[in-house]
Amino acid sequence: MDIPALLTSAGMNIGISVGMFSLYSILRKQPLNVRVYFGQRIAQGRTRNENLCFERFVPSASWILKSWEATEEDIFACGGIDAVVFLRIVVFSIRIFAIATILCTFLVLPLNYFGQGMQQGEDSTAMDLLTIGNVREGSRWLWAHCLTLYVISACACTLLYFEYKNIARMRMEQVHRFPTRPSNFTVLVRGIPWSSVESYNESVGKFFSNYYASSYISHQIVYRFGAVQQLMEDAEKMYKVMTTVPGKQCCEPNVNRCGLCGARSNSFKIVGPESGATRNVDDQLREKECEAALVFFRSRYDALVVSHTIQSADPMLWVTQLAPEPRDVFWQNLCVPYNLLWIRKISVFIASIVFSVLFLLPTTFVQGLTKIQHLQNAFPFLRQVSDRSYINLITGYLPSLVLTVFLTVVPPLMMLFSTLEGAVSRSTRKRSACVKVLIFMFWNVYFSNILSGSWIERMGKLTVTSPKDLATLLAELIPRQASFFMTYVMTSGWSGLSFELLQPVGLIGNWLFKCVLMKEEDFVRPVTFSYHTEVTRVLLFGLLGFTFCILAPLILPFLLVYFCFAFLVYRNQIMNVYFVKYQTDGSYWPLAHNATIFSLILTQVVAGILFGMKKSSSASTSTIPLIICTALFNVFCKNRFLPLFKNRAAQVAIEMDRDDERSGKLQEIVEELPSAYNQFELCGDQTQPQEEEEEEEEKTKKGSDESLKDLEIVNADSLSGEQEQAPASPTSAPPHLEPEPKIVSIK
Amino acid sequence: MDIPALLTSAGMNIGISVGMFSLYSILRKQPLNVRVYFGQRIAQGRTRNENLCFERFVPSASWILKSWEATEEDIFACGGIDAVVFLRIVVFSIRIFAIATILCTFLVLPLNYFGQGMQQGEDSTAMDLLTIGNVREGSRWLWAHCLTLYVISACACTLLYFEYKNIARMRMEQVHRFPTRPSNFTVLVRGIPWSSVESYNESVGKFFSNYYASSYISHQIVYRFGAVQQLMEDAEKMYKVMTTVPGKQCCEPNVNRCGLCGARSNSFKIVGPESGATRNVDDQLREKECEAALVFFRSRYDALVVSHTIQSADPMLWVTQLAPEPRDVFWQNLCVPYNLLWIRKISVFIASIVFSVLFLLPTTFVQGLTKIQHLQNAFPFLRQVSDRSYINLITGYLPSLVLTVFLTVVPPLMMLFSTLEGAVSRSTRKRSACVKVLIFMFWNVYFSNILSGSWIERMGKLTVTSPKDLATLLAELIPRQASFFMTYVMTSGWSGLSFELLQPVGLIGNWLFKCVLMKEEDFVRPVTFSYHTEVTRVLLFGLLGFTFCILAPLILPFLLVYFCFAFLVYRNQIMNVYFVKYQTDGSYWPLAHNATIFSLILTQVVAGILFGMKKSSSASTSTIPLIICTALFNVFCKNRFLPLFKNRAAQVAIEMDRDDERSGKLQEIVEELPSAYNQFELCGDQTQPQEEEEEEEEKTKKGSDESLKDLEIVNADSLSGEQEQAPASPTSAPPHLEPEPKIVSIK
Repeated sequence: MDIPALLTSAGMNIGISVGMFSLYSILRKQPLNVRVYFGQRIAQGRTRNENLCFERFVPSASWILKSWEATEEDIFACGGIDAVVFLRIVVFSIRIFAIATILCTFLVLPLNYFGQGMQQGEDSTAMDLLTIGNVREGSRWLWAHCLTLYVISACACTLLYFEYKNIARMRMEQVHRFPTRPSNFTVLVRGIPWSSVESYNESVGKFFSNYYASSYISHQIVYRFGAVQQLMEDAEKMYKVMTTVPGKQCCEPNVNRCGLCGARSNSFKIVGPESGATRNVDDQLREKECEAALVFFRSRYDALVVSHTIQSADPMLWVTQLAPEPRDVFWQNLCVPYNLLWIRKISVFIASIVFSVLFLLPTTFVQGLTKIQHLQNAFPFLRQVSDRSYINLITGYLPSLVLTVFLTVVPPLMMLFSTLEGAVSRSTRKRSACVKVLIFMFWNVYFSNILSGSWIERMGKLTVTSPKDLATLLAELIPRQASFFMTYVMTSGWSGLSFELLQPVGLIGNWLFKCVLMKEEDFVRPVTFSYHTEVTRVLLFGLLGFTFCILAPLILPFLLVYFCFAFLVYRNQIMNVYFVKYQTDGSYWPLAHNATIFSLILTQVVAGILFGMKKSSSASTSTIPLIICTALFNVFCKNRFLPLFKNRAAQVAIEMDRDDERSGKLQEIVEELPSAYNQFELCGDQTQPQEEEEEEEEKTKKGSDESLKDLEIVNADSLSGEQEQAPASPTSAPPHLEPEPKIVSIK
Repeated sequence: MDIPALLTSAGMNIGISVGMFSLYSILRKQPLNVRVYFGQRIAQGRTRNENLCFERFVPSASWILKSWEATEEDIFACGGIDAVVFLRIVVFSIRIFAIATILCTFLVLPLNYFGQGMQQGEDSTAMDLLTIGNVREGSRWLWAHCLTLYVISACACTLLYFEYKNIARMRMEQVHRFPTRPSNFTVLVRGIPWSSVESYNESVGKFFSNYYASSYISHQIVYRFGAVQQLMEDAEKMYKVMTTVPGKQCCEPNVNRCGLCGARSNSFKIVGPESGATRNVDDQLREKECEAALVFFRSRYDALVVSHTIQSADPMLWVTQLAPEPRDVFWQNLCVPYNLLWIRKISVFIASIVFSVLFLLPTTFVQGLTKIQHLQNAFPFLRQVSDRSYINLITGYLPSLVLTVFLTVVPPLMMLFSTLEGAVSRSTRKRSACVKVLIFMFWNVYFSNILSGSWIERMGKLTVTSPKDLATLLAELIPRQASFFMTYVMTSGWSGLSFELLQPVGLIGNWLFKCVLMKEEDFVRPVTFSYHTEVTRVLLFGLLGFTFCILAPLILPFLLVYFCFAFLVYRNQIMNVYFVKYQTDGSYWPLAHNATIFSLILTQVVAGILFGMKKSSSASTSTIPLIICTALFNVFCKNRFLPLFKNRAAQVAIEMDRDDERSGKLQEIVEELPSAYNQFELCGDQTQPQEEEEEEEEKTKKGSDESLKDLEIVNADSLSGEQEQAPASPTSAPPHLEPEPKIVSIK
């Protein structure tokens, strides 16, 4: 790719971004779009006043200011710990790439440019002169590259350490912050053994009252998904039958709720005389039991202990783990038989590999577009195209756009894979999808673009070089792909951010619904933040930044611009658009840590090999201690911090139990436990038909819908950044905002 | 290698084996060698009568008969569960290779021989005609090879499944068999936080009586190794001082025992008036405390729970695990600070890699000997050698002998590595050494011999073929190395077994000590069975068997002979020679299972590639489902059985606790706990200077030494196979023979 192509791409993307940013600053002030741009606020039930004035139609940058001014506490209040962690990843990227940009622009870039390793025009484009490929073989200046690598690695590790430490602390504080979480007292049991004599319900009761008599309170069997909806309908019908019989109005009006939730035995208790219909429902329920149950314990420590020990001599039976939060439970998957899980996991693994292989086709197509000049020998009709004036658009802007479009398929598919794998909670499902997308991106965007690009180049020249091993190949090829990735950063990053901000799907859909179809209901429901796409994008850009930093430093300013805007845009979106339904308690950080370490080590290995190829063996060998130190640092972090993200400490649980017991709060919490996990109520939200990509969209509680009706909208701009402490109704408070948090300040 | 060379090797090895087997059958009947050949019996304190007669000097095969007749219960009684598991590995090998030998000799071998793929003399030796290399390209007979592969894989998986199931059951029964094991009630705590205010001893007491008040009994701090010996000497000195002062004889004679062991506070209590000396010793002890302790609990369940939970918010502090058995504890390593362990592990990992790379030198030398004809071009002086009559000895017998000699260095070195890694028990140390030796053997004996052999061949021919990937290379090379591995099986296997039987080091040492140096003490002490060498040898031969079975089936009869003799010899040795000090409760089996699965999958992959190279693409693709099924089977076993080898089930622990509580036995067990782990007594055995290779030799309790003095020796032959139920003195019983085993019969 040549400089004109790059400039075309930059122009296109800057134009799109500036346009959309301006459009956003106008559209967000229109009352029609309040559901699109302020879903989070509506979910929290905050009201505002309307005031029609001229300012509503003038673009302004005030949202940027408000986004910048928000404190970490504000983010925490709106987006929970996961949002804070995500923004910490962005902040980490800004810091490390600011350092890298300064070092590389003033030290590495001039050295590359004056390196005299290649003449312009000879087998290389102007862009190549700015890469390490232009440094002469055996040049002493390679030591400067090596030094830069050392400085960047040291800074990255230091920053990573402090971030990890901070986030681990935050995660620990979550326990104190939400002391009444029912998940602390609840164990999810799977693989309940089947018996012809007794139901699953009875088995669970018998087992736990036998072995854990002192700590066991009660349990709640899980019913087959789908069955729940049907049962509720049956109950409603029955209620109608019973209420039409005169003098028999013994049921409370909301029988479908009161009859099914709660009580210890979990059988279908109808408040009224024992009729045939009741017994019938009882039998029906028994048939629809799954081999999974939620078991409630008297204290956090008891639940912790049960979740950590193997219960039975057959490790496929009575499998325990701490339960997810009530709104986090993914009820469908609880019914998947535990002994089939491994087959599902393997099938998903195979399917992922097949999909990755198939995805080589679009990647190769994209690289074919970039290197269209090289394909002219093989496909002569391309010669016409390459003479046209729009060639810069085709080689510069189009490839990364096509790739970005193809990549939109990936996150929903990986989400589907994670669902099939049998995740029991929405948060683990999203995190598992995040891991899958990340691996996919690293492999299919990064490696396969580099490899397929070089394959096309070689085919174009019709010279087959002797195959070398992968690492050597990478060292040779990475600098050549720098310009493609620059355009990718602009298209996927810059324009991606402006799309994120503008929410075009919601915007147009909402407009169609409201203005064209004139419908009453809303098109847009508040959605949860899609960490699995955004975390991976930031980490992929991190990988690009690290691996290109000393090889082709021109990419760094583009990245830095992306990260800075990402910081502002995501803060804005988290505070205004996205709704928090569940949290992973910061477990995206270990993922980010590992990805960064991987990027660092890859950078070091590639740089070491390149130094070797440039005949600077001393610089090459001096990267070896750096690689070893980075690996050691990773092992250290794994030992020091990772266990905190996997298990809870007994000491903490015991102390909290004691505190609550002394204050008498324990009894209260324990009494409310059995009603916390009400499958019938919680499943009710999930039974509406959902589109695959909008599966995340969840109806918020009705309270917030009510509050919207008397919504008075002012100049949204003037209020949107302020912390409106309007008393949220208890039902509409997001799950992380529980009464009386013990620790309030976070640094 | 040619057929004469192979025959020379076979002749040498058969001669050596027959000679040594006969010699053994005579030597074992001599009273002088009773300590060499019946260490296990002596350790158990069984007596026998002597009767000098002519039969003592006639070779006989009666030991084979006795070894054959012994039941699994006998093996269990003498060698514990590990010995049983080891013999199950051998039995599994016999079974699967009997099937493979029959199939391959009657189906694959004739097909290979009449395959007409190569002419004799053309670039190949006579041995090559028997390999798959001789099958024509595109031949339909390759389907027979594929079918054989399917049958062998299916049989192997079936056998593996049943063995795993049986051994998992046996392991479960161990808990019931030895209900009074102190390790069930004891937790090893490491990483006790340092405090300037209180000693480690006080910290542990405070922590556990705070958080586990209801279940905690007492604890015992671990003292620095080396310090123990010194303290005992000090105590003895002090005792002398006190006894020489008239009228102050208040200490019991064995003060060094009574003063240090036991009581709750673990301080140095001297029965007598508080003197300055006493306080001095108390301070000394405090200085010598390690950051590790053994904590005793009231029930098995309590100990299990504490060992499974993370105690502190800092995962490097208060790290708990179930304690090893008292005689299994490796006291030196308990004092290694927990937060340094990961550095030690990484250092050992790097050292292992360096050692593996260095070991390429002897391997290449060995392969150079085998392919001496190919080196003639490069080194002309070798031409003289290859014309001599002893060339068959050099190419046939010498290489595997040299390799076997070099390999004797590996097990002690790996044991040293495992010690440095910080294993806290002797059993885990040996198991970890076993894993290391296994990986080393698979890589350095198998892969590097195959690769270096081919490297030498190519250098000899001076033709450089284009590099292919490793798997293709292996597929091409494995059949060519068959004859070398046949000689290796004979030298390392057959002759190795006869050396194992004869115990030449012990024999000659004992003879020198008793007859030349006329010393009173014994040269030979009963040693524990070196699973880390023998298990790996059997598994390496398994790897050879699987990978060569359809490629070069001639190796199978040699292997089958080895396995059959191994079965007899090891049974004999386990019943007569080796002493049981500690057990891993069968955890060598998962290792054997994984190694076998690895061998199977490698075989399938190599066969698939070879079928592809022979242009039989249908046979090649039909191996893919086989590979997938084998991998799935492995995952299934990992899910189904492996957790049982890693954790204990809460249900079992609770039920045993209840049974013991009902019968009142729990109180007894609990009372004896604090005295079970007496570091001063147990370390006493370990403080004698030990040679590296004889580190495993352990002094048995004095009781057995006493019993030896009035040993009356008969014709050992007539008794050695019978189950002598002589009442063993309590002190001399091996640790696995505890009173009142609950389950006695094993199938």
